[in-house]
Amino acid sequence: MGESSTVTPVASPGLSVGLDIGGTKTLAVVLAPDGTVMAQTRLATSRGHHGVLDGAVRAVEGVARAAGVPVEEITGVGVGIPGLVDADEGTVRHAVNLGLDGEPLELATLLSARLGGVGVGVENDLNVAAVGAAHLVETAEPTTGSTDLAFLALGTGLAAGIVLDGRLRRGSHGAAGEIGHVPVDPSGPPCACGQRGCLELYASGSAVIAAWPTTTGRPAPVELFEAADAGDPAAVAVRDRYARSVAAAVRMLVLSVDVRYVVLGGGVSQLGEPLLRVVQEALEDESAASAFLRSLDLPGRVRLAPGRVPVGAVGAAVVGRGYAARVPDLR
Amino acid sequence: MGESSTVTPVASPGLSVGLDIGGTKTLAVVLAPDGTVMAQTRLATSRGHHGVLDGAVRAVEGVARAAGVPVEEITGVGVGIPGLVDADEGTVRHAVNLGLDGEPLELATLLSARLGGVGVGVENDLNVAAVGAAHLVETAEPTTGSTDLAFLALGTGLAAGIVLDGRLRRGSHGAAGEIGHVPVDPSGPPCACGQRGCLELYASGSAVIAAWPTTTGRPAPVELFEAADAGDPAAVAVRDRYARSVAAAVRMLVLSVDVRYVVLGGGVSQLGEPLLRVVQEALEDESAASAFLRSLDLPGRVRLAPGRVPVGAVGAAVVGRGYAARVPDLR
Repeated sequence: MGESSTVTPVASPGLSVGLDIGGTKTLAVVLAPDGTVMAQTRLATSRGHHGVLDGAVRAVEGVARAAGVPVEEITGVGVGIPGLVDADEGTVRHAVNLGLDGEPLELATLLSARLGGVGVGVENDLNVAAVGAAHLVETAEPTTGSTDLAFLALGTGLAAGIVLDGRLRRGSHGAAGEIGHVPVDPSGPPCACGQRGCLELYASGSAVIAAWPTTTGRPAPVELFEAADAGDPAAVAVRDRYARSVAAAVRMLVLSVDVRYVVLGGGVSQLGEPLLRVVQEALEDESAASAFLRSLDLPGRVRLAPGRVPVGAVGAAVVGRGYAARVPDLR
Repeated sequence: MGESSTVTPVASPGLSVGLDIGGTKTLAVVLAPDGTVMAQTRLATSRGHHGVLDGAVRAVEGVARAAGVPVEEITGVGVGIPGLVDADEGTVRHAVNLGLDGEPLELATLLSARLGGVGVGVENDLNVAAVGAAHLVETAEPTTGSTDLAFLALGTGLAAGIVLDGRLRRGSHGAAGEIGHVPVDPSGPPCACGQRGCLELYASGSAVIAAWPTTTGRPAPVELFEAADAGDPAAVAVRDRYARSVAAAVRMLVLSVDVRYVVLGGGVSQLGEPLLRVVQEALEDESAASAFLRSLDLPGRVRLAPGRVPVGAVGAAVVGRGYAARVPDLR
């Protein structure tokens, strides 16, 4: 398994399509050569080997139609999908939410065949989100060097996708960014992974739901932050403890790989600026007590994933560009 | 500041010299083009701006003499040194043990001038150790891909140097590998860094000395392991707790960057195989309780830094190769 790959290919990228296949919905974009999103669509995700493949074909065809371009003009397709992805083989397995288990789905080969031979790349969903965040950060904050960030997904679980110096870091066993399972409290509760006191138990979206169960059916983080804003002391305590836990995840990413940016994503990040503010405040509080942390400028590294752009699908489209050159003879 | 650099330059490397300047001694090697060590020397480290510079000149001249080569035939010099290093500028500051504080020492420029214009590179001591470990691992265990490892220094502090996919990872603020200051126990003791329960308080060499003070003047880890081998239950408990803490450091490096190897170095690693064994046992115990950890093969990734080779000086010499091509007109 390859350990890294360059995010931005050298060749002219043409039109690429990116798919972000989630447990309930699939988001799709067409990315123009200049990096802008020409069209975006969403459709319900179908399950199982046939469902995932058919859904991917429909998503590519649908978003191409929305952009007003024939499928034949798409030069590369990237797919972000949960589960264990072998990017070199273009296969996925153990995506339980999608009804894919032991037997690998040869998604790149099958999707390419269904789309007339276009190059298809498949990546883990967190990896495409990190690539998408890098693309969007590059656009928003041009830097002198290559983009360097972690996309920290605050969702059902807690994990990060990592782009170092412009290159996707998958890791030697595909486990880079799995900081959710670093234990941070030896007297903490047991984790489903078999350890105890894992960071995921404190900083994931599930941790918010566990600590502040929704009473109205709206998202638990929204209710928690509203109650805290209204002055409920229990809510303030839960919110601030959560902020400190997300801050701990940021700090862990910086003290291990020292990424330039940590982009907050996943369901909880839909809170937007109020989440960013409490996490930055927690980082400032820690830095006030530690010259060492202060020297690292942790609050200044945190960003929010853009709420209106499908970061994962954009990243998948950037990944798709890298596969455009692989099958020139077939077009 | 550059975020990474390739460990192995493409050009023919010629003869390079590496220096590892520590608080008490300076180790020097001459590295042949085929990667073998032609000569190695050690001398006492002198302090202060002049002391460090003069000592470096003497070390290069001395090791060249030991190898039987004129200094003029050295094509590149690398220096590993503690403190805050700016590798692009070739400067070092805040190396307290060396009597270097606020004012940067322009070590690359000054040393190059004293050596007749040879290219000189300067890196943090942990970074050269990681590059050296990569060089030695490549020699010992040829792999299909690029070397990918962390050099985990179990010394006064706890930190790692990181080589990812053949490239040194310094980080955006030079803080990559500073896992010693990740808190792992909210009810732990205060750390000098201003936080509480940092991993360094449990897994560094200083942690061994604090938990098992030497009574004979020999190294505390040696006495601890001897007492544990002799069946002293208190020593067994301290040793096993220490092994679990080092295992936690290994796990943190894998769950953040997923390095292929973690090489145990620093003073405590002079224990050799007995240290490796207890750390691997601790990792196996954890994996027995967690299918997730088991899938990551943590025990199989741990290696010992070679005891007889000056890993840091060898890494410095590899870094020095990369500077050989920078000043062709001066030779």
